[in-house]
Amino acid sequence: MRSAVALGGGHGLHATLSALRRLTHDVTAVVTVADDGGSSGRLRRELGLLPPGDLRMALAALAADDDSGRRWGELVQHRFGGTGALAGHAVGNLLLAGLMEVLGDPVAALDEVAALLGLRGRVLPMSCDPLDIEAEVTGLGSPDGALIRGQVAVASTPGRVQRVWLRPDRPRACPEALDAVKAADVLLLGPGSWFTSVIPHVLVPELREALITSPARRVVVLNLAPEPGETAGFSPEQHLAVLSQHAPELQVDAVIADVAAVPVPERLHGTAAAMLAPGGRVHLAPVAAADPAAPRHDPAALADALGVVLAELDMHTGPGPLAGPVQTRAEPHGSAPGGQETRRSNGWR
Amino acid sequence: MRSAVALGGGHGLHATLSALRRLTHDVTAVVTVADDGGSSGRLRRELGLLPPGDLRMALAALAADDDSGRRWGELVQHRFGGTGALAGHAVGNLLLAGLMEVLGDPVAALDEVAALLGLRGRVLPMSCDPLDIEAEVTGLGSPDGALIRGQVAVASTPGRVQRVWLRPDRPRACPEALDAVKAADVLLLGPGSWFTSVIPHVLVPELREALITSPARRVVVLNLAPEPGETAGFSPEQHLAVLSQHAPELQVDAVIADVAAVPVPERLHGTAAAMLAPGGRVHLAPVAAADPAAPRHDPAALADALGVVLAELDMHTGPGPLAGPVQTRAEPHGSAPGGQETRRSNGWR
Repeated sequence: MRSAVALGGGHGLHATLSALRRLTHDVTAVVTVADDGGSSGRLRRELGLLPPGDLRMALAALAADDDSGRRWGELVQHRFGGTGALAGHAVGNLLLAGLMEVLGDPVAALDEVAALLGLRGRVLPMSCDPLDIEAEVTGLGSPDGALIRGQVAVASTPGRVQRVWLRPDRPRACPEALDAVKAADVLLLGPGSWFTSVIPHVLVPELREALITSPARRVVVLNLAPEPGETAGFSPEQHLAVLSQHAPELQVDAVIADVAAVPVPERLHGTAAAMLAPGGRVHLAPVAAADPAAPRHDPAALADALGVVLAELDMHTGPGPLAGPVQTRAEPHGSAPGGQETRRSNGWR
Repeated sequence: MRSAVALGGGHGLHATLSALRRLTHDVTAVVTVADDGGSSGRLRRELGLLPPGDLRMALAALAADDDSGRRWGELVQHRFGGTGALAGHAVGNLLLAGLMEVLGDPVAALDEVAALLGLRGRVLPMSCDPLDIEAEVTGLGSPDGALIRGQVAVASTPGRVQRVWLRPDRPRACPEALDAVKAADVLLLGPGSWFTSVIPHVLVPELREALITSPARRVVVLNLAPEPGETAGFSPEQHLAVLSQHAPELQVDAVIADVAAVPVPERLHGTAAAMLAPGGRVHLAPVAAADPAAPRHDPAALADALGVVLAELDMHTGPGPLAGPVQTRAEPHGSAPGGQETRRSNGWR
């Protein structure tokens, strides 16, 4: 079986993982650990641990599709309500925090919850140390640009983010995450909060090196829309350009974007050309979910798109089984939400 | 296999369960739900759920004696430190609280954590509704006695507790707990905080009825010492007398007390005579742990004492397998702390 590693954080990573699990059982999530908001930020400040929220969400995305996996998946995602000391804390965040304290090792803690959820894949932090994001932001009045610190501050800035970096500025990568990237057949970067969940992965020196030198196929999945704050007003090609600006050596084999989210395909093709490996291409496909309330990727559609680009890449280097759909535990083939897998495939293949 | 039900709460119940698991795999804990202090009290006030602390401790006492059971047992018992919003909360309390919210059923939540810990037995609440303890207390200045409300207040009163009752005053019993009591071969009451963890079980009308009418053998295990507050100055026979005062119909088959904790055995025998069933007796044995820091029962010694009294009772009604020691999962026979099982047995059998 071939292996895929998805790097990101938050809802974007949840979408990628939900897509990848349809293509292979060997999925590893590598997750940003720079969150300083919400339940994660409170836990991080109170206990000095890795912010668990994005890790928890990745675990939930890969939970086994059986009774036990669903029940524990629901539990870890459950948030306490009300206005008390626990309000807003996800149970899975508290569970991960407790395990990190008891086991003294974030990776062991994640593996324990992974076993609880029946994961076949694995969820790993990009680093075993909590990190902070800093950004140079323009348009806030100062002619030199301002320095903004913290994931929440960067993600919600009314200014324009020019560049981000991490504190400490040369963090150690999680060794298990490095191994996974080096051994992967496919690496996925994005979608997600671009400056605060996606780009941080190329700012951890060892991880960046592994991402650049891994023999894997590299695929970037672009966001469906700019995010208010960190990428307000950004076009798809600008997303790609700032990623390349933060990791000029990074070459990718495919860029996947939603066909309706790319107003001027030529511009995206032009920007992509500079970072595409030989044989690589931009793949436009209908990968957005129908729900218009919040832009998000449809896992089945994203899996289809990934299947297409990986099959194409395989055609150039010999066939492999990754591109074909796999049956997940207790999940019959073709059980995509709304049963639209076939229609979608026919629509744009 | 024969079944045992231990009723109580807190550290006392933990000791009984640790002893019973050496005698049978079929152990059910029935746990008080009137705690209003510490982590449990905060969770109860914040979320309106059953106080989880005593339930968690009972689960930990019955956790499987293998790697997974020990690891999860350690996790559920782990308390967050520091001075923040989570300080003092046991991870297992938060896990139980989350499961109670998600599953909407305390018994289902307990069964879920029981499975996680590899329990063969079961932990059940005495009632599925949070309860409050009220007490009539004398010696506080008022000639009529004072009314004190709440487990913490009653347990720590400088006055003398005369009588306790529950609010609501006729709470429903947990149906599964009733079934367990009715089907048990042996019922154990005590040790534990006498007015706030032991006596409450006879104050739930359906549970009291089941305790009195069950065909099971009934055994009371007395405390090793009076507790500052609720039982300050109480002799062993006074413990027994107040239990009988709260449930005059209750007859028991055996009373187990630590031989060193009974200064005047004749008085205990005298008080016990009024509530012993035909063939029943007081059994004095060295059941205290060697640790002088805090009085607590030694599980192996308590198991030995239980074995003796149950074997005697069986001799009157035919032999049964309950009195013999059982091998727990991955726990070799005779692996009592300090390996003193044999010595102790020989000492007083």
